[in-house]
Amino acid sequence: MTSRIFTAGLVVIGDEILSGRTHDKNIAQVASWLQVQGIRLAEVRVVPDVIERIVDAVNVLRESYDYLFTTGGIGPTHDDITVDAVAQALGVSVVIHPDARAILEKYYADKGGLNEGRLRMARVPEGADLIPNRMSGAPGIRIGNCHLMAGVPHITAGMLDALTGTLEGGAPLMSETVGGYIPESEVSALLRDTEKAHAECQIGSYPFFREGKVGSNFVVRSTDSAALAACVRDLTDGLDEAGFAWQPGGVALSR
Amino acid sequence: MTSRIFTAGLVVIGDEILSGRTHDKNIAQVASWLQVQGIRLAEVRVVPDVIERIVDAVNVLRESYDYLFTTGGIGPTHDDITVDAVAQALGVSVVIHPDARAILEKYYADKGGLNEGRLRMARVPEGADLIPNRMSGAPGIRIGNCHLMAGVPHITAGMLDALTGTLEGGAPLMSETVGGYIPESEVSALLRDTEKAHAECQIGSYPFFREGKVGSNFVVRSTDSAALAACVRDLTDGLDEAGFAWQPGGVALSR
Repeated sequence: MTSRIFTAGLVVIGDEILSGRTHDKNIAQVASWLQVQGIRLAEVRVVPDVIERIVDAVNVLRESYDYLFTTGGIGPTHDDITVDAVAQALGVSVVIHPDARAILEKYYADKGGLNEGRLRMARVPEGADLIPNRMSGAPGIRIGNCHLMAGVPHITAGMLDALTGTLEGGAPLMSETVGGYIPESEVSALLRDTEKAHAECQIGSYPFFREGKVGSNFVVRSTDSAALAACVRDLTDGLDEAGFAWQPGGVALSR
Repeated sequence: MTSRIFTAGLVVIGDEILSGRTHDKNIAQVASWLQVQGIRLAEVRVVPDVIERIVDAVNVLRESYDYLFTTGGIGPTHDDITVDAVAQALGVSVVIHPDARAILEKYYADKGGLNEGRLRMARVPEGADLIPNRMSGAPGIRIGNCHLMAGVPHITAGMLDALTGTLEGGAPLMSETVGGYIPESEVSALLRDTEKAHAECQIGSYPFFREGKVGSNFVVRSTDSAALAACVRDLTDGLDEAGFAWQPGGVALSR
């Protein structure tokens, strides 16, 4: 049985990422969340705060994949233009969403009330629904297959949490990792041959350097658990035969 | 005097980034390095280990910008296909580079010698030059305006270091940051009006939450130092008038 694969594209919006000033954390966060929903992140584009560039990226990715996500550019300042760009991409107007306005009025009631900048955060492409944000006032926005999220990672996390279980996904891509202080250049033939022998699986090899030693984690992925287990078994048998020590789960590290 | 602006695109290659398993560090690293070279990172695309997807991204970005960089996919295993993809994008063959072979032979002399996987790392698009890698054996690759770098960040760092000063850049984009525990939603009109009054500057507003308080850093960018200073002065005068405490350099944080 082959099930349909659901895919998503992500547009990361912001000069601060392209200048290197801010280290993006949303790509990994959105990717991990999508995996749990049974949706595969197929492409990411990072674009500057320039409306035409956002429009182009949004249009290509929303048409190429089942779902589109954006992060960044939905705040109160002049450089927050994601709503305008998505409205332009979809060919709809920008309107004030009454529920968003009410949420912001309440949130800012004891913080000086609404002003021009804060009211910007109630603007949505016409026809959009809101994505609750329990971290701060301004909601995320959902229209068609597009999901507009915050740039600040912990606010994005709250919005993703609110979306959990609301998107149709396919069979989740399962993965199993084994790894150790194994130079990938000594097992490249084993990896290639094992992948070839298991058509329903992909094997990724991720080298690392740690405490002065080279090592690799090998990630086997499949939507079929039996195929996954058989591939991992062949791979670890091969590592055993070649005399390499490996550990289940691989060696923990961040890159 | 307006000087030419030099731009670059970056293709980040790897299923491990799109699965959320590995947190990318190369976008920020390449972006910061480019700023010092007087080159602006204009776009990033993250694509999976699929040759057609890499070819497409490489072709679009190398034609759109002055320089193209890639990270990932130049190792010894079957999923390392960046060289093949770039060769296909450029319409050239893949050949063994004799200097790369010599480097690898020397590097692996006391580690079991060359094998099929290790020799993969000597493969380059025909006509390419090597980018020295003083961290491990395999070199990076430079052909036309394309620069193929490692996926492992500290190896990429060494390759960038080797490239420092070799690329023509324009006037570096300068920036000055001020910030404090200032809700951006209370100064959005000030930011917009200040930017409008200083045509040669852009102002970015980057909100944060820290120790239970909201704040923002405001980054003013320009290629003209006098324009930059004037804009920062107007912005900080405005913050003073509005009664907000700010600090030069902004509030240090990572996102």
